[in-house]
Amino acid sequence: MPYQQPLSEKQKYAQAVCPVRSMKEERARANFNIRELTYLLDGGEQNTLLKEKFMLDMERDPLFKMDDIHDLTKPEIRERTMEKFRSLIHYLQNESIEVFKKRMEVVSMLDPGFWTRFGVHYGLFVGALQSNATAGQFGYWLEKGALSLTGMVGCFAMTEIGHGSNVPGLETTATFDEAADQFIIHTPTLTATKWWIGGAAHSATHASVFAQLIVKGKRYGTKCFVVPLRDPKTYTLLPGVNIGDIGKKMGRDGIDNGYIQFTNVRIPRGYMLQKHTKVSRTGDVQEPKLQQLTYGALLQGRVAMVVDSGNTSKKALTIAIRYAAVRRQFANSKSGGVETKLLDYPIHQRRLMPLLAQSYAMLFTGIEMSDMYNSMMSRLESASEGDKDLNEVIEALKETHSTSAGLKAFCTWNCLNTIEQCRQSCGGHGYSAYTGLAGMYQDFAVQCTWEGDNTILTLQAGRYLISSYREAAKGKKLAPGVGYLNNLSELIGKKCAVSSLEQILDPAVIIEGWQVVCANVVKNAGVEFEACLASGLDIDDAYEQCSQSRLYAARLHSYGYLFNRFADAVKKTQGEVGRVLLDVCLLYGLYTIEENAGAFLQYQYFTPDQMEYIRSQTNVYCKRVRDQAIPLVDAFNLTDYMVNSPLGVRDGNVYEKYFNQVQRSNPQGEHPYFDRLIKPLIHRNAGQDDDEEVDDEAGGLEDEDDDE
Amino acid sequence: MPYQQPLSEKQKYAQAVCPVRSMKEERARANFNIRELTYLLDGGEQNTLLKEKFMLDMERDPLFKMDDIHDLTKPEIRERTMEKFRSLIHYLQNESIEVFKKRMEVVSMLDPGFWTRFGVHYGLFVGALQSNATAGQFGYWLEKGALSLTGMVGCFAMTEIGHGSNVPGLETTATFDEAADQFIIHTPTLTATKWWIGGAAHSATHASVFAQLIVKGKRYGTKCFVVPLRDPKTYTLLPGVNIGDIGKKMGRDGIDNGYIQFTNVRIPRGYMLQKHTKVSRTGDVQEPKLQQLTYGALLQGRVAMVVDSGNTSKKALTIAIRYAAVRRQFANSKSGGVETKLLDYPIHQRRLMPLLAQSYAMLFTGIEMSDMYNSMMSRLESASEGDKDLNEVIEALKETHSTSAGLKAFCTWNCLNTIEQCRQSCGGHGYSAYTGLAGMYQDFAVQCTWEGDNTILTLQAGRYLISSYREAAKGKKLAPGVGYLNNLSELIGKKCAVSSLEQILDPAVIIEGWQVVCANVVKNAGVEFEACLASGLDIDDAYEQCSQSRLYAARLHSYGYLFNRFADAVKKTQGEVGRVLLDVCLLYGLYTIEENAGAFLQYQYFTPDQMEYIRSQTNVYCKRVRDQAIPLVDAFNLTDYMVNSPLGVRDGNVYEKYFNQVQRSNPQGEHPYFDRLIKPLIHRNAGQDDDEEVDDEAGGLEDEDDDE
Repeated sequence: MPYQQPLSEKQKYAQAVCPVRSMKEERARANFNIRELTYLLDGGEQNTLLKEKFMLDMERDPLFKMDDIHDLTKPEIRERTMEKFRSLIHYLQNESIEVFKKRMEVVSMLDPGFWTRFGVHYGLFVGALQSNATAGQFGYWLEKGALSLTGMVGCFAMTEIGHGSNVPGLETTATFDEAADQFIIHTPTLTATKWWIGGAAHSATHASVFAQLIVKGKRYGTKCFVVPLRDPKTYTLLPGVNIGDIGKKMGRDGIDNGYIQFTNVRIPRGYMLQKHTKVSRTGDVQEPKLQQLTYGALLQGRVAMVVDSGNTSKKALTIAIRYAAVRRQFANSKSGGVETKLLDYPIHQRRLMPLLAQSYAMLFTGIEMSDMYNSMMSRLESASEGDKDLNEVIEALKETHSTSAGLKAFCTWNCLNTIEQCRQSCGGHGYSAYTGLAGMYQDFAVQCTWEGDNTILTLQAGRYLISSYREAAKGKKLAPGVGYLNNLSELIGKKCAVSSLEQILDPAVIIEGWQVVCANVVKNAGVEFEACLASGLDIDDAYEQCSQSRLYAARLHSYGYLFNRFADAVKKTQGEVGRVLLDVCLLYGLYTIEENAGAFLQYQYFTPDQMEYIRSQTNVYCKRVRDQAIPLVDAFNLTDYMVNSPLGVRDGNVYEKYFNQVQRSNPQGEHPYFDRLIKPLIHRNAGQDDDEEVDDEAGGLEDEDDDE
Repeated sequence: MPYQQPLSEKQKYAQAVCPVRSMKEERARANFNIRELTYLLDGGEQNTLLKEKFMLDMERDPLFKMDDIHDLTKPEIRERTMEKFRSLIHYLQNESIEVFKKRMEVVSMLDPGFWTRFGVHYGLFVGALQSNATAGQFGYWLEKGALSLTGMVGCFAMTEIGHGSNVPGLETTATFDEAADQFIIHTPTLTATKWWIGGAAHSATHASVFAQLIVKGKRYGTKCFVVPLRDPKTYTLLPGVNIGDIGKKMGRDGIDNGYIQFTNVRIPRGYMLQKHTKVSRTGDVQEPKLQQLTYGALLQGRVAMVVDSGNTSKKALTIAIRYAAVRRQFANSKSGGVETKLLDYPIHQRRLMPLLAQSYAMLFTGIEMSDMYNSMMSRLESASEGDKDLNEVIEALKETHSTSAGLKAFCTWNCLNTIEQCRQSCGGHGYSAYTGLAGMYQDFAVQCTWEGDNTILTLQAGRYLISSYREAAKGKKLAPGVGYLNNLSELIGKKCAVSSLEQILDPAVIIEGWQVVCANVVKNAGVEFEACLASGLDIDDAYEQCSQSRLYAARLHSYGYLFNRFADAVKKTQGEVGRVLLDVCLLYGLYTIEENAGAFLQYQYFTPDQMEYIRSQTNVYCKRVRDQAIPLVDAFNLTDYMVNSPLGVRDGNVYEKYFNQVQRSNPQGEHPYFDRLIKPLIHRNAGQDDDEEVDDEAGGLEDEDDDE
């Protein structure tokens, strides 16, 4: 049988390119203790053990089956998502809030749709109560079941179809009816329809509704009201409440977003949450003396999204880099037919290694910001009015608040881009739902527009930089994150003073470079802003006019900040782990300088020759990080269940697992529409007899000698 | 009733911000003849009328109903897609091939999933016959129904699960059995499984299979064979053929991709397509003397994808810009509560206007490339061997082939980025499936990895630039597109010689700038390559080593090329339309320079001061193009049916249409899982009595006076 010969050749070949063997080779390259790095990333061994426990809990929980999610229809995924509440409530009731928060971080990485749906009640609805209810009101809602999720499920009704970022511009009204001691909640126009309300379509009995308070004809701005939506016993809508399903989204279909229209819905006066503004029985409105310090709450959300950007990047890179370690493509003249690993191509290193470095930068930034946030909040709580410490903390809080606005924006953008680059780096297989990156993109994409639209956040960050610049010009000492603006005279015009090119490869030089560049762009934005003021624009218009400069300043400031946090973390890390992280950190620095070469050359911190050196060293460091790429990805410590992609399996056995997954997800059955559609189509000229369809052995070859 | 007062205020407000009125205002700004620009973009009035006819044909064809596609399940969309074949075959049989091709261009923009499925048979399968069959073989397959789609449907089985871009590395074997005068098609390993085969899961009776030809134990490389897969009468699989469904993808779920495994499947010798390599009855293999000139076929696909990138960008921008013209956000101090249109925010102009300019650049490039392709192909056909013209055409074809590799990559990347930026610019609503941009992203994403993975194509383009540089150094006169490499001595070191900054605003200056920058990066890549050779690397390794420089050179060359094509088109256009296009073209030039500021500063074509001017003028031109943004989008001439997004409707009535679409797509019904899931969950502490659930009118407010 002559055709078996090549089979056995192929078998030899298959051995030489065996993906499992390739993965083992890569893992054997580790020149540091992987476990040690995992502890560092997780914030200590205890946290790693906790995360491992959470991953196992979910893997063994049949409700958290994940490998079939790509083929569920929207109704099925909605139902499955609701079902998971059972498990999580069990944990919520049986572990400390700190432990449960860490669990939710893992849940978010595993199943963002479920995380959102659960978070709508516990994060948004309960959060709205905490921020806006008096202690008595809060107790009232707890008693009704807000924390135990008994008898009620909440949703958070802020955005309207016509209003997103502009909360003061919301149109829904809450008019006080003194005679009845009630508020009348009303949707006056189509554009006032509450929109995107997570949990509204199927889950919620109550909503925290943001509406314009109107008392005795006077408007007092947007306040928060609890409005019952459904009878908890039957889930029929209450009178005056119209709710619809918002339907299909790009991703996160597990969450049942809905719209809500209120038609003169009456609620007791006490359902207005009155921690800040109070309305008395006789319609006296007592407004708070001071605007509440809301930095804390916003900051927490942003820190969480920086952390989530790092975590989701981990997952995407685990898939792309493990695949690149075993996927082979093109043989070269010396390899005897064995193809080269993707990871060995310089261009593939260029595609993935900088993103790996960036994800480490985001992870360390997330850790440092979480710590900073916690310590600031506890200082804030313990400080009393007039303390010197209080002012300092508030100043630091303002700075971190603005920096975190920029970081939320750039980290979510970075992560979304990382997912897409990872997807494309898997070639055609990245387009399959089962390889996980497509769905990851679709789920993550919303992070760029919710909880503060990214572009608007960058402008806020830029506005803070301009105002800091102006305050510094008046002699004010700024908070550490923007402290470089106190040094403008030293930084503007400063050039990189190295005596040899190699000296550029030092975090201190790169930090200085970022300071110089940031100082220049912030100053330019400030000068532009002041020119706008001088030309007669009011402050708001002047800021609008400088939008692009604000965005640019926020971008560079954020990149500089990320590099600083990464460099700080590296400085604190000793030994082998410290050495490998230094390479990763330098790659991140070189890559971001190259990406922003225009700014570094514009302000002449680097010369064109130095920049050329940076470009070539980026290649060198890509290669260096590539050598440790699998160990660096292993340190993320995600189980195969968490990664949920046959291309990202730990053992490298990608083809078998991918093939099995596709087979399992698409069982063969009857042809679904042959009789109805295909048969009449391809047999439509049925006049001819059957012989025509018998294969002609010659296949048109006989007369070929006449062909050219 | 005191609560009616605000209602009427709201009504007044609603009038002031009426989206339909806002859209009319924008349309009234047109300072050019929109229809004239449409003709220019379509290549003449006749083409515009044809496109309008096609759009109407489909809009009135119930099979092409589009507004419900977001809620179809995969099985439903697969079936709907098959059903549409009926309509298209009708047109195919009743109109000229030229007209039908133009129709398909519109179909591709409307329904990319269907376009792909239809194209698998007519483009790929029939195309494989055309390229690889002898005239006799081609006639044989036509007679069997390949063109009329009677009795057979084809698919194209090239890629394998383990092999994509590396076609010579495919593992499937086709072994000649002389005794039986047959080939034995066999899948020797799991990684040899044919994968991603469009049409395999449900549609195809035959496949054009690419396999390693083995005759008498000797391998002759990858050839093309027609292999019957299913009995056309029953669609049962033929013996030895195993086909499975590849299932869910990121997008284009209408196409039934499958995998195929062959186990010793026998086909007549004549089913090997023998236009090039021939195998005789006795197993003599006759290989072609010359490699066929395949530039033409590849080029056509790439030109089509440049055109498609322009077309899809049209659709995305129509949605985002029309929405931005009516969506309002934040009131300023002077507007009396009326909020500002998104389009009036400088930052929003910055987000969308450069992308609008870029889409014009891609559209004009697509037109010029199509013309160039057609004229080159007809010159090629009419020229005879040894003609001076023939050599010139082949040289031009090689140049266009390489340039088009880069353009395919950068245009599909640009378009994918445009879709995502448009999606994000719609804020939260961009995440809804019904607003169209999410699905557009998911459908388009595959264009970056199929028909030549983008990264690999950029490297090919870069390789051609390096070899052109080296040939120019030896004195060879290059084809026009890379002609600047014949001018290196003049271009290297050249600075922008303007006496005033305003002179930069001239296409000729920008063209020169691109030439200088491209000359520098290509030269650097060439020098780097030669250094690699000098260090002892072989050619392939040397090219790999320079990958990043090749990609960078290809990137800048492609941007320069796009600008040149746009500037050419503008130069040929007179009057009002010419004037508005000049603004758009300058914006494109300024924006791309700013985006590549690092290169322009690195090679010192522009000084930092000039670059600062370019940055500020980008803002100015964004504003200028914004003034004509709606007319420029109207010129794309897409009907509401084509745009298929309530945010992109021509009349601007976005909220009503969006709300109606969401309602229509999500009819209210019974709660799907209240009894099964929610009731047991929230009533799990059912021991307590009903009174607890009665609303307490006080809502916890009574004791509030004790609260802080």
